[in-house]
Order: sequence, then structure tokens, then C-alpha cells
Amino acid sequence: MQFAAGGGDGVDFFQVVPVEAARTQFLASLGGRLTGVEEVPLLQALGRVTAGPISALFDLPGFDRSTVDGFAVRARDTFGAQESLPAYLRLAGEVQMGRAPDIVLKAGEAARIATGGMLPAGADAVLMLEHSEVLAPDELGALRSVAPGENVIRRDEDAQAGGPLLPGGRLVRSHDLGLLAAAGVTRLAVRRRPRVAVLSSGDEVVPPEQQPAMGQTRDANSYALAGATVEAGGEPILLGILPDRYDDVAAALRSAVSTADLVVVSGGSSVGTRDLTAKAIAGLGQPGILVHGLAVKPGKPTILALAGQTPVVGLPGHPVSALVIFQLLVRPVIRTLQGLHPDAPAGPILTAELGRNLASAAGRLDVVRVTVRTEAGRLVAEPLLGKSGLLSTLVQADGWVEVPEAREGLRAGEMVQVHLFLR
Amino acid sequence: MQFAAGGGDGVDFFQVVPVEAARTQFLASLGGRLTGVEEVPLLQALGRVTAGPISALFDLPGFDRSTVDGFAVRARDTFGAQESLPAYLRLAGEVQMGRAPDIVLKAGEAARIATGGMLPAGADAVLMLEHSEVLAPDELGALRSVAPGENVIRRDEDAQAGGPLLPGGRLVRSHDLGLLAAAGVTRLAVRRRPRVAVLSSGDEVVPPEQQPAMGQTRDANSYALAGATVEAGGEPILLGILPDRYDDVAAALRSAVSTADLVVVSGGSSVGTRDLTAKAIAGLGQPGILVHGLAVKPGKPTILALAGQTPVVGLPGHPVSALVIFQLLVRPVIRTLQGLHPDAPAGPILTAELGRNLASAAGRLDVVRVTVRTEAGRLVAEPLLGKSGLLSTLVQADGWVEVPEAREGLRAGEMVQVHLFLR
Repeated sequence: MQFAAGGGDGVDFFQVVPVEAARTQFLASLGGRLTGVEEVPLLQALGRVTAGPISALFDLPGFDRSTVDGFAVRARDTFGAQESLPAYLRLAGEVQMGRAPDIVLKAGEAARIATGGMLPAGADAVLMLEHSEVLAPDELGALRSVAPGENVIRRDEDAQAGGPLLPGGRLVRSHDLGLLAAAGVTRLAVRRRPRVAVLSSGDEVVPPEQQPAMGQTRDANSYALAGATVEAGGEPILLGILPDRYDDVAAALRSAVSTADLVVVSGGSSVGTRDLTAKAIAGLGQPGILVHGLAVKPGKPTILALAGQTPVVGLPGHPVSALVIFQLLVRPVIRTLQGLHPDAPAGPILTAELGRNLASAAGRLDVVRVTVRTEAGRLVAEPLLGKSGLLSTLVQADGWVEVPEAREGLRAGEMVQVHLFLR
Repeated sequence: MQFAAGGGDGVDFFQVVPVEAARTQFLASLGGRLTGVEEVPLLQALGRVTAGPISALFDLPGFDRSTVDGFAVRARDTFGAQESLPAYLRLAGEVQMGRAPDIVLKAGEAARIATGGMLPAGADAVLMLEHSEVLAPDELGALRSVAPGENVIRRDEDAQAGGPLLPGGRLVRSHDLGLLAAAGVTRLAVRRRPRVAVLSSGDEVVPPEQQPAMGQTRDANSYALAGATVEAGGEPILLGILPDRYDDVAAALRSAVSTADLVVVSGGSSVGTRDLTAKAIAGLGQPGILVHGLAVKPGKPTILALAGQTPVVGLPGHPVSALVIFQLLVRPVIRTLQGLHPDAPAGPILTAELGRNLASAAGRLDVVRVTVRTEAGRLVAEPLLGKSGLLSTLVQADGWVEVPEAREGLRAGEMVQVHLFLR
């Protein structure tokens, strides 16, 4: 632990950079690189990202299929039919489920068909059961007319052979699994989950399973950041706690950079640890540190760097600050490395009335934890103004509100967007 | 495959039940039952639900800790200090990180301390580095006064020994992992993920890896429903495809009920398969079928039942209908069985302008797939009016809009809530 020559948080001599500009620069520095491709069985593709477009090998459903229970007909045989003047049709047979019917409908004929059944040759529409009356074992009346194609899914209406099923860069959801299964796609190519090396630093930090001596602190950041990595779609690699010794920090970071897609080191809370971390990150090689110091609260002493092709993020030591910066700057990298758009809400967003004035500084983005309550039928977002060293206030929060750079604060009663935590 | 005696969708002779009433009845029928408890390592608790409240064993952080870099002081020694009239303090030493300091501050003394450092005995506040000037190796000037407790986290400010860390029934998020790690909780008791048996039925259905003959259809529902189960926090058990034979369906359902926490069978698309499924569900024993037929589009021919203590849901065969009913009625059960509130948005909700008129029937809930586009700076939700047998329209959708029971439709230009799919 040593003291920096300069001011209190070690970044006074750096010009702080607006979050949006820093993010744009950091994401651009990735140069469009993506993680590699791996093939996984269908069910394991859930929540993964398609490596490229997936095309249908066959028409879907592959045959003209009834969407109702009723009678396959030639539509023109029903034209003009109504309750008072049914069109009479001869029953030529019944379509069996799961088989190509051997019936060929001739003029004036119909065939029983169930939902999902294959239309027999000659039929071009289905008359619903409730619009028919059976007059004799082999005769029925159509009580209304049907148009060609009515109550039918065409053989290629869900997908055409060679046509698109899913685009590349698509986060696969449950309904996508359904379409892929229907199309016979049982394995698919997805992007490897970005491997995120997670390190903590500081002589005072001990692992959670260890009873800390007086003055020591258990490592909260590694676990919070590993969890946030999983939530963002990455694969965390916990590399433990670094002591405040340059050689150890430098060696650990070099090793992390060579194996991970992204390195996240929370810099210890003291300026000495932070300076040491910054020096070790700078020592990883070109292009080096891109941004040191962000116009954001909490999270000002953040470092964004690129070691060769590997992004490295030096996060503040305070757990709340580290998690805020993770959401603003690390999650977008994890998404970008898989080919997803960097920005997408991680959970519900709710519009509520701000419960009290929030002071901020112009040019600085403030991220404020809030609870949400109902008051006389209105939703009210109440700021939780705890210190950023207190995890309990984040745990108590229902979500967060941002005070944009352009504002010097928000007034009680203003409508704000609350980013809710999933629950 | 047989035809029912009655109308087209097999539920005409049942009175359709409003979705909200059906859901309330179905959830109440669970009688507050929860899945069992299992202990998992900290990282694996992410996304799981706490089985009970978790208390702190120790105070957190466990010692009075500095939140800034500066000087530990006795606050009263700084009272009245200002730039033009500093308070002079004698430097008694430096607090080492990760150790209990052996310094005891006497009147007029200060000790160097870094963020995260433990306050020495006698100190009750920290003066920030930037509010001090070092005058001599062992003398400094305080350029402003600090209040008792300023820049300090009290020894029990994040948690008190014996006090609450997390409540029971809490979905564990990344920040919760941080607090638990800080408190030394490395294993915790969570609810077992509900096991959801997933079955498809219908003679026409074949597994996705099989090339369907003409008239056959690959099983999309099993995979879509398994994915939706994972998204909802459950553990899917794929039990395959049931033929249209009562004995086989009844035996498979009996076996599923005895091993799973919840059974979901998509009933085939034809009325014959549906009738057979309904009969087999009814045959599982008391209390039996609670609801048969819902006032919803799509998804009317839904069955809600309880076989002994196991909820059983008969879903429509059309994949879009099956997934809509899953979100409305199955996801709430999976959540309830873990002790979560049944309702919580699964993703972002966005307010947009409806792009065209939507017709509906009074008394019926309509769930309509939409895409969202930007038009002259406004968000517009455009209904995708595809057949519920078409998965491609669900895959193309950005989310869905509900037309409530009380409305006979929505007008173009109305503001609607779009439930977005995560992406």
C-alpha cells in the first residue's frame, strides 16, 4: 500500500470521460471480434447466440395442413352455401392423422379431416365442423362457403426450403427452439460464451470461506461479478485475490489475458491498490489504457484497456461501484463478443414518480439505487442514498434510476425510468 | 383418432372460464406447497430461490472502516477548521491495510488511512486527503471540519450479527451473491427447481431427429415447452410423444404425475387427441379437472387439473397457443412452487402505439404477437396476425400485447404495453 502523489481517488490528473464516449470507444476497440463457434444440441442452445443464419432444409409444414376439425373440400363447391341453402357434398372418406391420404377429391366431394391432418389431393380448403351438418353416412351439407386456402396452412407457410429460420446473432429463446425442432434442426452452431477472468485485489481481502482478522474483508466482488457475468451470458473464471505486490498482479493479469476473452479486476478500494493495478494494466502492452476515469457516480476510478486483443477492465473496489460499471461497460462487451447488440435491457423497465429531489453534477451520469412503492395508486421510486461501500442498499433496492449527464439533478415528482432487477 | 360428439374444438359443452379466475383457482389448489430444500454452493445459488431467511453471523464490515483515503481523526479536533484557519494535528502513524492498527489516537492526533482501512481506537471520522495539507513529516493541517462518523462505515452498518441478509423466497441475483460472500455465507439452502414433465401427443407427431413421412409433423412443442420451463426456473423432463391410445396416454401420465412436480401435456391439435388427453387426465384421480376451456385466444382448449397433489396442464396442440398458455398459467405455477410471487414480468415492458385496429370479443383475453418499429420518433407495435399453428410469426415477433377481457378490441393509435422477449 502506497499513497499516490496526487489527489484522493487517484484519477484527478486524468480527465474523466463521459460514459457514452468511453463505451463507444471501448466497444469499437474490439474491432468486431467475436468468440469462436461451437455446435450444441438443440436444448442447450437456449440463451445462446446463433453463429450464423439458419436455413430450413425442407418446407414447413411440408404439406397443406388443416388448422381446424371439419371437412376438406374444393372451395368452389361451397360457393353460395348458407344455412337456409346448404351445398350438398358427398363424403369420400376420412383423412387419417399422420398419413398421406389416398383420397382424391372429385367435384362435389368432401373428406373428414382433423386439425393437423393433410389435405387430400383436389381439396383446397377446410369447412369447419360447426359449419356443416351430416345428412347421411356419406352426405353432408355445407352451411356456409369457404374461400380457397381457408383453414389451411400451406405446405411452405411456416418456412420455405432454403429460406430463413433464424438470423445470425440471435439470442435463442424457447419459441425459437420450437421452430428449429419443427424444421428438424437438432444441433446448431452458436457463439462460445465469452470467458471472463475475474480477479479481486487488495492486501486486506480474504476469501469468503475464511474468517477475516480485524481489518480484513471478505471478497464480495469476485462472487458478485461472477454472478453478473453469468447473467450477461458469459462464463466466469474466478482467479482469486491479488496481493498489493506489482509482480504478482502483473503476472496474474498476463496469465488472465492469455486465456480469457475479457479480464475484469476489481481494483481494491484504496488508492494505493488502484495505482498498482493501473500500472500493471498499463504494463500489459499495446494499445494499453484507453480510458482512466469516468464521469459517473459511483464508479469514477474505472480503467478501460486493451492488452493486445483482450479487453481489460479495472473496476472500482467498492462493490456497488463495481456492479454499476459492470452493467454500463462490461455487460455490453460480453454481448458484443457474441454478436449481440451491446444494449438491451436486462429486465423490466418501469415508469415511476421520483420520491425526492436528487442532486447531481452537470456532465456526470449518476446511477441511483431505488425502491419502488405504491402510493395512492401511483408508483413512487424512492432513492436509497447509501454509501457505495454498502452492499445491503443494493440488495434492498428494487432497481436503479439514472440521472443523465445533461441534468444537474432530478426533482421530486418527476417521472423517471426505473430499471428493475428481475425477481 | 375419433371425433367428439359435439362442436369443433371439443370444449363447446364446457363453459369457458376467464383466465384470471382460472389462474387464481389453479394456484390456490396448490395449497401453498413448495418444492423441497437443497443446499448449494454460493455461485450455484444464482437464479435460485432462498428457502428461508438468511441471517448474518457477524457484523458487517466488522470494524469501523474508512470510505476514503485520508486521515483518521477525532472529529472534535477539526471543529471550526477552514482553509484560512487549519486545525493542526500531529501524525501518529499509518494504518496498514488488512490489519488492526495498534495506534490509539490521543487528542490532537491523526493517522494516515486508506479506503477500506480500519479506524484506530480513538478515531471517529476520516478527513479526506484533499482537505488536508501535510506541513511536516509528523504534522498536518485539516482544511475543513468533519462530523463524527463522516467518511466511515460503522462496524455493523452493512449488516448486524443476527440481522437479516436476505429474506426467504428471494430470487438470488448477482448483488445478493456479493453480500452473502461478504458475510461468509458460502453455501445456502434454496428451493429445488420444480421438475416439469413435458409430453407431446398425437399419432402424427414424430421426434425432431426423424424425417417425417407425408402427413407427419415433428415435435416442436416438447422443445419449446422445455425451453420455456428453463426460462421460468424449472427443470424440464422430456417424456416424449404419446400415441392416440388411451391406455398408453393414461399410463404415461400416471408415471409422470408420480415423479414430477408439474405435468404439461400438449394435447395434439385434433379434437380426437384432445378428447383422449382430457379423458386420461380426468382418470388420474381426485380432485381431477378444475377448468376445461379458457376465455382466451389463442389457447381456448386448455385443461387445468390436479392429480392428487400434482398439477397437470393440458395445453393446446398449436405451438403458439401452447406457449401463450404456458406464460399465462404454467410459469406462475413454476414460480409459486419455489415460493416466488406468481407474477413478475419475464422481460422488458415497453409502451408503444398500436399500429392497426385489433378486433376481439368482449369477455375474452387476446394475446397478440407484435413487432415494434420506430416511426417518426414514436414506437409503433404492429400486430402479426398469423395463424396460431405458425411458429414463424412468434419467432418474428418482438413481443406480445394483451387485449383485455373488458375490451372488444383496441384502436390503431392507442398506447399499449408490449411484453418484449429478452434479446
